[in-house]
Amino acid sequence: MKLYTFFRSSASYRVRVALNLKGLRYEQIPIHLRRGGGEQLAPSYKAINPQALVPSLEDNGRFLTQSLAIVEYLEERHPKPPLLPGDPADRAVVRSMSLAVACEVHPLQNLRVLNYLRNVLHHTEEEATNWARHWIALGLEALEPMVLSVPNRKGFCFGDTPSLADVFLVPQLYNARRFGCDLSGYPALVKIDAACRALPAFANAAPENQPDTE
Amino acid sequence: MKLYTFFRSSASYRVRVALNLKGLRYEQIPIHLRRGGGEQLAPSYKAINPQALVPSLEDNGRFLTQSLAIVEYLEERHPKPPLLPGDPADRAVVRSMSLAVACEVHPLQNLRVLNYLRNVLHHTEEEATNWARHWIALGLEALEPMVLSVPNRKGFCFGDTPSLADVFLVPQLYNARRFGCDLSGYPALVKIDAACRALPAFANAAPENQPDTE
Repeated sequence: MKLYTFFRSSASYRVRVALNLKGLRYEQIPIHLRRGGGEQLAPSYKAINPQALVPSLEDNGRFLTQSLAIVEYLEERHPKPPLLPGDPADRAVVRSMSLAVACEVHPLQNLRVLNYLRNVLHHTEEEATNWARHWIALGLEALEPMVLSVPNRKGFCFGDTPSLADVFLVPQLYNARRFGCDLSGYPALVKIDAACRALPAFANAAPENQPDTE
Repeated sequence: MKLYTFFRSSASYRVRVALNLKGLRYEQIPIHLRRGGGEQLAPSYKAINPQALVPSLEDNGRFLTQSLAIVEYLEERHPKPPLLPGDPADRAVVRSMSLAVACEVHPLQNLRVLNYLRNVLHHTEEEATNWARHWIALGLEALEPMVLSVPNRKGFCFGDTPSLADVFLVPQLYNARRFGCDLSGYPALVKIDAACRALPAFANAAPENQPDTE
């Protein structure tokens, strides 16, 4: 498998974690989001990923995009260890936690949105940062009670092993720290994040430990 | 089943379509997103959905949130007719089309984001509308080649019956029209949308045909 990735991209980070949790080997193809105006915009990359986003996964000659679709694919092709529980309603809860990050937080604070605020709407760096912090806080304020409402939850978002929800949480908290967000209001999420990052699958996927880390 | 919904919410629209395609009966509980400062913000609703978003689905005493998580749940509980193909890579392609809408377009043009642009960043209505059009165009420009690249595609986003991708496409094109977007650059998407809207499952889920339609 080949993963088209950028070390600091939190969507790439999610897929690296999932690949590591599944014990799968993969080659990294770095796509630098800032160099040369953005390597993701090159026609050769857009042929692989028309959205001009990372990550993309190449497996058996197929090119797959969108981190959640890729992780669901890995779950279907390599079911052990599972990243989703067995019961359909429980699976929906775990997916809804992942989507609370993937749909409501991350898209609002990614590079191209902040660039639009800076370059097209002429906002200051401080206004762009406050924008990112606002949406991150709103998302985490909702995710904290979602996690706390899980019956008999152990050390992770759902149960006693990492799930899809943890795969999405940890990269988002990495971003939250980059933006200088105050995380003191989310003690459950911070504790889960620490438990995850102590595991090799998460540590080896972290932005600071990649071949393209700057 | 009970669906907490708002007629104009495109995330609610997606779930209504999926329920109809599966032939499932459901009761609608309207949550008015503008009345009284927004009924979704009431503590009684936030107890159901901590994100204060619609839709939520109540089934067998469980409350499920996030439209994609709900549709995946319906697919697992009621597999016929399928909204995802059988092959894992094909499933990933269909999911990636849905996510191209759910992650890259819809979150940037929803009510609370436009309200932040208007009320916090003091942008004009025209600037807020241009923002929405920009992200919708960027998303549809990527989705059109994703759909066109499907081998042997028939009348829908993937194959000859509606899939998860169509469930997400149609409500997004409804929004695109509301924002006055030019859709002439996406002939394949417009054609698929028309084919879908001719089907009762989509027509009966449309915002103009709901109990809470204004």
